[in-house]
Amino acid sequence: MGGKRLAPWTVEASDLELDAHPRLRVWRQRVGLPDGRQVDDFWRIEVPDYAMMAVFTADGRLILERHYRHGVGQVTLTLPAGGLEAGEDPLEAAKRELLEETGHRAPDWRSLGGYVLGANGHFCQGHLFLAKGAVQVATPNSGDLEETELVYFTRQEALTALKNGEITVLSCAATLALALLETD
Amino acid sequence: MGGKRLAPWTVEASDLELDAHPRLRVWRQRVGLPDGRQVDDFWRIEVPDYAMMAVFTADGRLILERHYRHGVGQVTLTLPAGGLEAGEDPLEAAKRELLEETGHRAPDWRSLGGYVLGANGHFCQGHLFLAKGAVQVATPNSGDLEETELVYFTRQEALTALKNGEITVLSCAATLALALLETD
Repeated sequence: MGGKRLAPWTVEASDLELDAHPRLRVWRQRVGLPDGRQVDDFWRIEVPDYAMMAVFTADGRLILERHYRHGVGQVTLTLPAGGLEAGEDPLEAAKRELLEETGHRAPDWRSLGGYVLGANGHFCQGHLFLAKGAVQVATPNSGDLEETELVYFTRQEALTALKNGEITVLSCAATLALALLETD
Repeated sequence: MGGKRLAPWTVEASDLELDAHPRLRVWRQRVGLPDGRQVDDFWRIEVPDYAMMAVFTADGRLILERHYRHGVGQVTLTLPAGGLEAGEDPLEAAKRELLEETGHRAPDWRSLGGYVLGANGHFCQGHLFLAKGAVQVATPNSGDLEETELVYFTRQEALTALKNGEITVLSCAATLALALLETD
C-alpha cells in the first residue's frame, strides 16, 4: 500500500437526529480518522434499499416505464424497481416488483451488483439485475402512487435514450449501461 | 398517453426538518397527486451535487482511486470525483477535481449525463464525464479527509473489477459502464 494509510474510520458517537423509520433515518456521527483527526458532524442517511432490473422480453425488447418521479420533478423514463420489504432477498424483490409493475415473469436472471448510493452519506443500497426472456403473465398492478405507462425499447432505442438525456435517474443509467455492456 | 395521468405532483407544503446547510437539508413535504390524493410526509433530502469522471490516460489506462469511503464502510475502488462549489459549472468542477486528486489534466472531455440520485427523495445530482488523453502535470493534493492510492487499469481490468464487485458505489458503476459503452 506504499505507506498510504487506507484504514477504516472509527465511529465514536452516532446521534439519531431525525427518525421517520422505516422511510428515513438521519444520524450525526463523530468519526475518528486514521491520522488522529476527528470530525464532529459527519451525516449518515438511511432510506430503504431497493432492487432495479433491466428486463428483456422474449422478443428482445427492454421494458421501461414512463411516469412522474418526485425526486426528479418531472415525467421521466425509468426501469422497473421497488423497495425491499423487511428481510426480503433482493432477487425475490426484483421478481415481485417486475410482476407487480409490469405483469411479467422472466426465467433468466443474473446480478449486476449491489451498490451504495452515497460514498459519504450512505443513503441505501441498490441491487441491480438483468433478466431475459420475460413474458407477460398478468395485468400490472403496482399499487404505487404514480400512474405508469410501460414502453418497450430495442437495444438501440435504449442507447439513444441514454445519450439523449431521457434517463434522468442514476440507478437507471447504471442498470441500463451495465446490462447493455453484458449483452453486447 | 392512453388515458394515463402522468401529470406532475404539486407541493402543497414543505417544512425544513433538518438544516445542516450546505452539507444536508431534509424537508417534509405535503404533496398532491393528479388523482386528488394527498401524501402528508414525503421526504426530500438535499446534499451537494457532484462531478465524477472516467478518465483515460494518454496510454489508454483508466485512473481509479483506492481509499476508505465512510458511506460504504470499507476501503474500495472509486473514480475521481468531488462536490460542486457554489455556482460552479460541473465540467469545471470535474477538471478541478481531476487535477487536485490525481495531478492530471485531459484535453478531451465529454458529458455522460447528469442524473438525480433519488427518484423519490432527490438527494442530489451527479454529473458524469468521460475524459481522454490525460497526462500528469502536478502532484495530487486533494485536501480530502481520506488517504488515497491512485491505480491505473486497462479497459479489461476495469470490466473485471465491475464484475467482481470491487466497484461498490453506484455513481462509479454508472460512470464506468457508460464510459466503457462509449469507448467500445
